[in-house]
Amino acid sequence: MARSREKPPPSAAVSEPESSGASVRHAHGVDPQIKESNLKRLRRIEGQVRGLHKMVEEDRYCPDILMQVASVQEALKGVSRELVRNHLSHCARRALKGSDTEAQSAIDELVAVWSKHAG
Amino acid sequence: MARSREKPPPSAAVSEPESSGASVRHAHGVDPQIKESNLKRLRRIEGQVRGLHKMVEEDRYCPDILMQVASVQEALKGVSRELVRNHLSHCARRALKGSDTEAQSAIDELVAVWSKHAG
Amino acid sequence: MARSREKPPPSAAVSEPESSGASVRHAHGVDPQIKESNLKRLRRIEGQVRGLHKMVEEDRYCPDILMQVASVQEALKGVSRELVRNHLSHCARRALKGSDTEAQSAIDELVAVWSKHAG
Amino acid sequence: MARSREKPPPSAAVSEPESSGASVRHAHGVDPQIKESNLKRLRRIEGQVRGLHKMVEEDRYCPDILMQVASVQEALKGVSRELVRNHLSHCARRALKGSDTEAQSAIDELVAVWSKHAG
Repeated sequence: MARSREKPPPSAAVSEPESSGASVRHAHGVDPQIKESNLKRLRRIEGQVRGLHKMVEEDRYCPDILMQVASVQEALKGVSRELVRNHLSHCARRALKGSDTEAQSAIDELVAVWSKHAG
Repeated sequence: MARSREKPPPSAAVSEPESSGASVRHAHGVDPQIKESNLKRLRRIEGQVRGLHKMVEEDRYCPDILMQVASVQEALKGVSRELVRNHLSHCARRALKGSDTEAQSAIDELVAVWSKHAG
Repeated sequence: MARSREKPPPSAAVSEPESSGASVRHAHGVDPQIKESNLKRLRRIEGQVRGLHKMVEEDRYCPDILMQVASVQEALKGVSRELVRNHLSHCARRALKGSDTEAQSAIDELVAVWSKHAG
Repeated sequence: MARSREKPPPSAAVSEPESSGASVRHAHGVDPQIKESNLKRLRRIEGQVRGLHKMVEEDRYCPDILMQVASVQEALKGVSRELVRNHLSHCARRALKGSDTEAQSAIDELVAVWSKHAG
């Protein structure tokens, strides 16, 4: 899975070396309810995607498949919304309270995420 | 999986009773390349969604997860685009060539699908 | 205003030379109610955009402006939806009834429009 | 123009009574380059919307109009992106540095704006 940027911002994330030697970034804080509800949603979405595979395999009527794709997209939007909420409450808040450099880096990152999701 | 409308339009789809007694609608025609490429995409998307689940489980940095969600959504848009192409080439073309009632029904359905995906 | 493609498809549009010498494409048919409601919407949207200009000029609170931008985008989606409906009912229907070449050209064009609006 | 919420959050915006007696919210800070570029964009968008009106009036080919609508939508996304950047740099940063109540209110507002734009 591609990382969105090579150099993590100064402080908004916690970087740790992985066993593989690569470094992954972690959240400073995660609300347990957000985490649990997102894990549930993602399980359900995985099942919906398998359902889509089956519909395509069975030559189901395209508008019926398209309506299902839209419903998966909606479900993913729900996941994103909660990730944004969590990010703002923890890492982003921490970074925006920090130095101007830290804040600027967090703002650039948030605008990049916005841009990827809202255009 | 919910069906988007109770009564299928007169002729754009082929309705068949399922073993369960419920009726599902099938496409009149499916381009083999579209089908194969969509099946491949959906397998990859299923893996990406599992990857998202793992990222959430490991408290990965939210913007990194959000970038991955956006990439799943992009991949789903690719699936939709091909489904639209297939639908226009087969079922919709057939219906639009048919009677005014058949054509109107196919147009209403396409506008509903458009609306669900493009707003 | 840029034209989306240099060569118009064989028959889905009516091409006419303009006074300037350039050729513009026209619809084969336009539903009068769709036309009238779209003209009204676009007048309203023009006013909304002027309102946005004023809000920016007056340093209004960004989330308040952002909510207004979203409402302009919603209104534009309404316009698009009606344009799609009109196109399917007239030019696209005509082209899809035509030769395979005409149909293919109309399908490619519809997929391009879909792609631009739904991704 | 409708206000998105009746009660402004404690501190993210500056509320002032208008001559009409109604209160409008203002930004705490606006980057002059963002303001100027957004004013320019909005003037251009206003012209594009007038162009759309003319295209509809002249029964122009629907896919050509639809491509223009998409380009207006793109331009509006550019305006939103800059408004988000400005908001994060000024009002949101200020609120996120504040008390938990102020921060929570700013986060709720940002999630609502996200939701309206990204779904």
